[in-house]
Amino acid sequence: MRYLAITGGVGGAKLALGLSRVLEPSEVGFVVNTGDDFEHLGLHVSPDLDTLMYTLSGLSNPDTGWGRVNESWHFIETLRDLGGESWFNLGDRDLAVHVLRSGWLREGLGLDAVTARLFRAVGIEHTAWPMSNDRVATRVVCDDGEYAFQHYFVRERCAPRVRRILFDGATRECPHPAVLDALADPGLEGVIICPSNPFLSVDPLLAMPAMREALDACRAPVVAISPIVGGEAIKGPTAKIMDELGLPQDAGAVARHYGALLDGYIVDACDRALAPRIAHEKLAVIDAQTVMRTLDDRINLAHTALNFLHTL
Amino acid sequence: MRYLAITGGVGGAKLALGLSRVLEPSEVGFVVNTGDDFEHLGLHVSPDLDTLMYTLSGLSNPDTGWGRVNESWHFIETLRDLGGESWFNLGDRDLAVHVLRSGWLREGLGLDAVTARLFRAVGIEHTAWPMSNDRVATRVVCDDGEYAFQHYFVRERCAPRVRRILFDGATRECPHPAVLDALADPGLEGVIICPSNPFLSVDPLLAMPAMREALDACRAPVVAISPIVGGEAIKGPTAKIMDELGLPQDAGAVARHYGALLDGYIVDACDRALAPRIAHEKLAVIDAQTVMRTLDDRINLAHTALNFLHTL
Repeated sequence: MRYLAITGGVGGAKLALGLSRVLEPSEVGFVVNTGDDFEHLGLHVSPDLDTLMYTLSGLSNPDTGWGRVNESWHFIETLRDLGGESWFNLGDRDLAVHVLRSGWLREGLGLDAVTARLFRAVGIEHTAWPMSNDRVATRVVCDDGEYAFQHYFVRERCAPRVRRILFDGATRECPHPAVLDALADPGLEGVIICPSNPFLSVDPLLAMPAMREALDACRAPVVAISPIVGGEAIKGPTAKIMDELGLPQDAGAVARHYGALLDGYIVDACDRALAPRIAHEKLAVIDAQTVMRTLDDRINLAHTALNFLHTL
Repeated sequence: MRYLAITGGVGGAKLALGLSRVLEPSEVGFVVNTGDDFEHLGLHVSPDLDTLMYTLSGLSNPDTGWGRVNESWHFIETLRDLGGESWFNLGDRDLAVHVLRSGWLREGLGLDAVTARLFRAVGIEHTAWPMSNDRVATRVVCDDGEYAFQHYFVRERCAPRVRRILFDGATRECPHPAVLDALADPGLEGVIICPSNPFLSVDPLLAMPAMREALDACRAPVVAISPIVGGEAIKGPTAKIMDELGLPQDAGAVARHYGALLDGYIVDACDRALAPRIAHEKLAVIDAQTVMRTLDDRINLAHTALNFLHTL
């Protein structure tokens, strides 16, 4: 692999789609957050792997911004009528992915092998690795108690005030070995941290000591794209969480959060004025159009990130 | 309970619906075959319990003759597209039942408690017991090998030639205790064996020694309704299996199969001529309209069976 891209939810998947259009399957691998994974109704649900799968395969739902296109909701409606737990919306078609994944995991396949099968089944040629085949689970400590990630994110709609975010198992479990190998490969030309939520989608990876060390030791440059644009998040609770964690809600705070990990940082064109203040001798900062509305936007940002890597 | 009714698939459920319209919930209990149950895609599927639930609640699908009304098939279509096992058709709404049942069983509830919850959730006030809370699994030995029941019944569409039918676990596992209690209750006025497949839907119960003994010891009369009408089965492979097992395909052979268990037997009006030849000093035989096309047919046959019981 020439490039690795670290991605979590919807924003990350958009840039991953752009990268998949400008790089061959042999050139880029995606490293995906699995801190959001959970067992629900007996099923293993991997929201960020599925978001990437649906996005790369063209199956994502343009109306909802999550889940699968041409979806129906008869299963979850009936489950609700029967008194089942229905706060996590599972579409009828989406459910097939969770049932297959759960079955293959029970048969003893690793989450990486399951992911490879599913991606291949929907026609994706690029490789995606779960950040770990083991269980690292994000937990959100709030003013009113501690939540499993999906309980915070979906059931409580991110309403509780966040104090701290924990990653159960992160110091015990191992990153995916192929990711460590790719980071140690002298042929690697760069790492891209997609504009995902730093606290919820990227920190779970960085919380694994071996992943952090491999990124620190990696000779290729690392660039991140700010998920904060004009002081706001494009989608999701990033800005709200930054406020609750006592951080300023701006692109600079995200760069400081990643710290010495980064060699380069891309802020949105509307934050151009911030760039000189974020940059320092070990961090180059450029601006670009980072809001990805169209496929061309995704491809353009992919090109920008790749070109930027080669200047570092 | 004044009456117990033993039921398996669709034909049995039709008469059960009739009985539920003429008897109060306190007067009749349904004992349901679970030999067809199986684990599929990580779900516990109980086809005969579900057939009874959908029939009693008015949710059964009039078009297919099985499954649930207003059903959609997006889950199974997607599963097939993704390379999953799709030979067992699971509707999107029906799936909610299997997911809930499986979850409640994993939480430690018995199949009886799960059944009670599901029946209550769809508004059924009558009681249904699985024949056992334990696993008794029907297996079909055919000329070309041995099949788990649903593999024979659904995947192979009953095509293989049957040699023998086995009930794994039948001699080890216990019948539901409430059924044994009801059979021993001096207040019991009768047992009705619904027109279900004797070999596939009723024999699994009879294969449990404690169930057989309780039925033999029961002081209330037992009547069965022939599932064979004019030498043919109304639905399903009963006649085909009788042929393959070397039995004549007629109502008399079913009565002989049940043997000393029966005190009374109801054949269809079209088999009236057979009745005197089936009857003997320990077996009364009457004829009636047993083909149930309408709700009135179901109610009329229920009345006929109940009246017949009181003559024995």
